[in-house]
Amino acid sequence: MSDKFLPTNSYIGTRDFYPDDMRVRNWFFAKMRKVVESFGYEEMLGPILEPFDVFAAKSGEEIVNEQVYHFTDRGERHMAIRPEMTPTVARMVAAKSGEIRYPVRWYSIANFMRYERPQKGRLREFWQLNVDLLGESGLEYDYEILSVMVNLVKEFGADETMFKVKINNRRFYNDVMREVVNATPDEMKVISKAVDKRSKLPRDKYEEWLKDSGIPGAKIDRLEEVFGMSLSGLAGKLTGDSQGAKELTDLFGLIDKTGLAPYCEFDFSIVRGLEYYTGNIFEVYDLDPENRRALFGGGRYDNLIGLFKKAEVSGIGFGFGDVTFQNFLETHMLIPSDIHENNGVLITVFDDVDYSEYIRLSDELRVSGIKNTIYFGGNKKMGRQFQYAESMGIKFAIVMGGNELSEGKVIVKDMTTREQTEIKRAKFLEDFRKIFR
Amino acid sequence: MSDKFLPTNSYIGTRDFYPDDMRVRNWFFAKMRKVVESFGYEEMLGPILEPFDVFAAKSGEEIVNEQVYHFTDRGERHMAIRPEMTPTVARMVAAKSGEIRYPVRWYSIANFMRYERPQKGRLREFWQLNVDLLGESGLEYDYEILSVMVNLVKEFGADETMFKVKINNRRFYNDVMREVVNATPDEMKVISKAVDKRSKLPRDKYEEWLKDSGIPGAKIDRLEEVFGMSLSGLAGKLTGDSQGAKELTDLFGLIDKTGLAPYCEFDFSIVRGLEYYTGNIFEVYDLDPENRRALFGGGRYDNLIGLFKKAEVSGIGFGFGDVTFQNFLETHMLIPSDIHENNGVLITVFDDVDYSEYIRLSDELRVSGIKNTIYFGGNKKMGRQFQYAESMGIKFAIVMGGNELSEGKVIVKDMTTREQTEIKRAKFLEDFRKIFR
Repeated sequence: MSDKFLPTNSYIGTRDFYPDDMRVRNWFFAKMRKVVESFGYEEMLGPILEPFDVFAAKSGEEIVNEQVYHFTDRGERHMAIRPEMTPTVARMVAAKSGEIRYPVRWYSIANFMRYERPQKGRLREFWQLNVDLLGESGLEYDYEILSVMVNLVKEFGADETMFKVKINNRRFYNDVMREVVNATPDEMKVISKAVDKRSKLPRDKYEEWLKDSGIPGAKIDRLEEVFGMSLSGLAGKLTGDSQGAKELTDLFGLIDKTGLAPYCEFDFSIVRGLEYYTGNIFEVYDLDPENRRALFGGGRYDNLIGLFKKAEVSGIGFGFGDVTFQNFLETHMLIPSDIHENNGVLITVFDDVDYSEYIRLSDELRVSGIKNTIYFGGNKKMGRQFQYAESMGIKFAIVMGGNELSEGKVIVKDMTTREQTEIKRAKFLEDFRKIFR
Repeated sequence: MSDKFLPTNSYIGTRDFYPDDMRVRNWFFAKMRKVVESFGYEEMLGPILEPFDVFAAKSGEEIVNEQVYHFTDRGERHMAIRPEMTPTVARMVAAKSGEIRYPVRWYSIANFMRYERPQKGRLREFWQLNVDLLGESGLEYDYEILSVMVNLVKEFGADETMFKVKINNRRFYNDVMREVVNATPDEMKVISKAVDKRSKLPRDKYEEWLKDSGIPGAKIDRLEEVFGMSLSGLAGKLTGDSQGAKELTDLFGLIDKTGLAPYCEFDFSIVRGLEYYTGNIFEVYDLDPENRRALFGGGRYDNLIGLFKKAEVSGIGFGFGDVTFQNFLETHMLIPSDIHENNGVLITVFDDVDYSEYIRLSDELRVSGIKNTIYFGGNKKMGRQFQYAESMGIKFAIVMGGNELSEGKVIVKDMTTREQTEIKRAKFLEDFRKIFR
């Protein structure tokens, strides 16, 4: 073997999930599953690779040009590692459009890759809960998805002091930009990027950036004005009927009648990056002063199926990434401290007992649902074996040496209290169950 | 929008998992999780991309040259989509070799990609349960892993008429090839591929292939002889002490003393493809005459960590792929028929009731753990709504129109018996729970 070793770190921007990390992950994805399933959503999944074209058509310039991992396969197919789930969902719905019953309520938990400069809350490989509702359009959809989003965050014990869903509408945004700000289509492209800059740059740098990008001073002032206005105020400034304004007003009408009001607010500065959104859009914000940022978001998209089939199918959905959310849970101390506990049993071993005796003991425990392992290793000193149990957080150790075996008994040691209890081998399971909890 | 549509099929050799497919998948991976966790294994996971070199060093020629998806990233790193898990496990153990307590018992459920000509039981993207035990060496490891393998298959109701674990040993195989068959190192390379050919080709074609590959006739006869021999017969033909023979004999000693004997047999024709195996090797076979093939397998590898660190860490493990296993479950009819049942509730809607009333009903059910959806869609005729419930396999529909609302009541319709029950809105949850099961 050469002296040159391969590096042990994971690929840049990706994570190794050791068992401790995995327990946190499994805990929060299980909770998410529970919530979305209670709303009637069914799990689905697609392949990790999709044709590059599926994303090129709709995922937005930045993602496609700068962020997609893509390559040509041996059959000369231009493939991409998925950077998001929605195009796959649209493809799968299109593939079965004849037999599928609308509305379709689907969710998935999957991994994605994007070229990113790794930073807090952003990695190259992330996992995401993706929730989509497809079928006939209607405001109730929007409400339902919003309710799923709010209840997902609430499920972890978060309350209205910790997060807020900011709501806007793509059509309404375009109407206001056109009619109130008098932005040209080119200016609108710049402005859609400005919103993000506005939240990150100091005021003067932000205005400088707008000026350098060709937005006249008067429009910058007008822009600042509209960002601060209420929904009714902005809607009042539009001359004709605005479908977007109606979609927002109706949605807030429903929000006010149910329990979601404390978690939701209109915010005209929310635009969402992806180009495929067409109606109401949502973004969940962390309210912690140290971490004021978008946790996740989504919205309505109306034309995605159209890439695959002559069909008009409305859709609304969101993606909920694990990286930012874990930050949120840690910031607000919402991860239970007992998540790392190991409720298993260690069977200690002695040289004077045939190994098959331990296997029998282990099988009895296992079949009755009690997780256990037999101690291995060359050093079989009792102290060493107990030390191993402690280091693994194991609560009970079982001791059965030659003496115990010949006397037909087993010793159970509680690793927390150090208490030892002697029980009959013949009644082992029955008596151990009384101690084990 | 252009008239040219993107294809709706998934990438060649990959699968779309619709909710029905997903239920089967989730069912069997949940059972697998339960079994491996009962043996004390902890879940972990690595990234989908690993450096190409990690596989180049150890995964075996065929996988690396013909099967790995690899590409160069924007930082000129030569990356691969993982074709298997074990090198990642080895890397992660090496990365924490200072703090990790041996033995490490890890498992993962992850997706992998290999260039394959798609065929029954082989796809390009597959999911796999991967189980590894790393630490000090010892025969008990081999037994434990074997026991996990057998208990995994048994968990699904399979018995000894349906599957068998065939066992061999890499060292023993090499000893016999060298001493009994008198094969040269070059001939041994050919012979290791011959085993696979032997099970698939007619006898004359198989011998022809061996001859064409340069194996002399006398050695072909000798080879056929050893393939049919028992462990003790073969071991008796070796002159010196064979560590491999001892590893096998000791393992079978333990198998005979516990409950695994009916599921295990020695088979000298098992070699396993991966080059990193060094000791006992296992392959689980489907015994169905129509489907006689390997389901999954594994074995001992001793040097993997050495790629990353100057360390000798024994390991033993296996990978259990979903594609062949689902075939096995279907062949032996081991998938329960009620797996596709939907135990949810549909709340039907009327135009004369404010929508927020339905939301309240839905939230009450959801919070108490009852999965439900509100009917959407333009066509609100009762017949249409019930039809939807039936098509989704939903068991209960809830009816609350303007009349019911004003009279403070709710109608529950059992979609199977068509029976309708009237309950008070004020006592809705309490009374519904008596009907719902």
